[in-house]
Amino acid sequence: MYIKNPMEIEDKSMDIIDEVMGDTYFSKEEIIIAKRMIHTTGDFEYRKIIDFKEDFIKNAIETIKEGTTIFTDTKMAYMGINKPALEKANCRLKCFIDDERVFKMSKELNTTRSACSVDLAVSEGIDVFVVGNAPTALFRILELYKEGKVNPKFIVGVPVGFVGAAESKEYLREFSIPQISTVGNKGGSNVAASIINALLYMTVGR
Amino acid sequence: MYIKNPMEIEDKSMDIIDEVMGDTYFSKEEIIIAKRMIHTTGDFEYRKIIDFKEDFIKNAIETIKEGTTIFTDTKMAYMGINKPALEKANCRLKCFIDDERVFKMSKELNTTRSACSVDLAVSEGIDVFVVGNAPTALFRILELYKEGKVNPKFIVGVPVGFVGAAESKEYLREFSIPQISTVGNKGGSNVAASIINALLYMTVGR
Repeated sequence: MYIKNPMEIEDKSMDIIDEVMGDTYFSKEEIIIAKRMIHTTGDFEYRKIIDFKEDFIKNAIETIKEGTTIFTDTKMAYMGINKPALEKANCRLKCFIDDERVFKMSKELNTTRSACSVDLAVSEGIDVFVVGNAPTALFRILELYKEGKVNPKFIVGVPVGFVGAAESKEYLREFSIPQISTVGNKGGSNVAASIINALLYMTVGR
Repeated sequence: MYIKNPMEIEDKSMDIIDEVMGDTYFSKEEIIIAKRMIHTTGDFEYRKIIDFKEDFIKNAIETIKEGTTIFTDTKMAYMGINKPALEKANCRLKCFIDDERVFKMSKELNTTRSACSVDLAVSEGIDVFVVGNAPTALFRILELYKEGKVNPKFIVGVPVGFVGAAESKEYLREFSIPQISTVGNKGGSNVAASIINALLYMTVGR
């Protein structure tokens, strides 16, 4: 026999994760987000590599409450974000990775579509960024910030991988922007989505 | 300065992953899949928890070459699978999680939509299963197999989490079905998608 009730499964999962959180120093709110990242990956190590900066949660929730537009770098993160919760919060989600303008720009500049999709987002006035995959997207956001072209309300910076991902997140942590990131290689679109979902549930409930 | 060419980034990532694979006993084909799972998660530990059974790769590639229909339990896995490669292989992808019939069945039976979506897939003649999230979906496939209602060509079984995920994969490994799974809590829709993408690239190229 196995548990078949979805909310029962989730509640029990969260209880199991709770048991290992004793060696962390997160705030009560931070722990909610950390737990959802662990829930998504099955990886307890996340509790040791998550970094919150500049009142991330407070700023993120305030921004969400205003009904913001959120950029994501991948369709997987886009897909993973809970749409009923997003609607309830009166927020919108944008992913430009398949936008024709992005394809064109990427060829012209010989850079990633992820980076180009950031340019397009900024040109449309978006100032909330969720990066789960592409270091080049995160680097591009920070370049545009330094050039004074965007002032991010908050950044979820959890690119994954072995080329530039760790460095892009280290670079992000140099900036006084409300942010969450991970130290090292780990991250991903699923992790990015779990963070936004945790914030949405904290704001509008489940 | 950071690398901006997508294929260059991927090639360099794969070289870095190669460096840690020396302590594994995968075949030349298995290592390709294992590397893509690590590439997707940023997590070297995957090389220690991946289990291939019953000539998984040979059977999976043969099935893909026939132009099969593939079931996925989540929209995130659906989204993560490379569509041009899928089309090139003349394969199709189905996710029933948002199907009205699944909503209805789930309410009636008080079980997960994931499990019900397996029933729907089987009723439509699907016999290739990719489970990245829901232990209940994997359990359901094996129940239907035991009842003689489906004979899976292959199963990608990488549910993630702390309630039933490890057990569902352990149970899967008791069956003589071509399969890949992970030992323990780790897995996910991104991991599931990475496995199918690796198989597609091995079959039709990048």
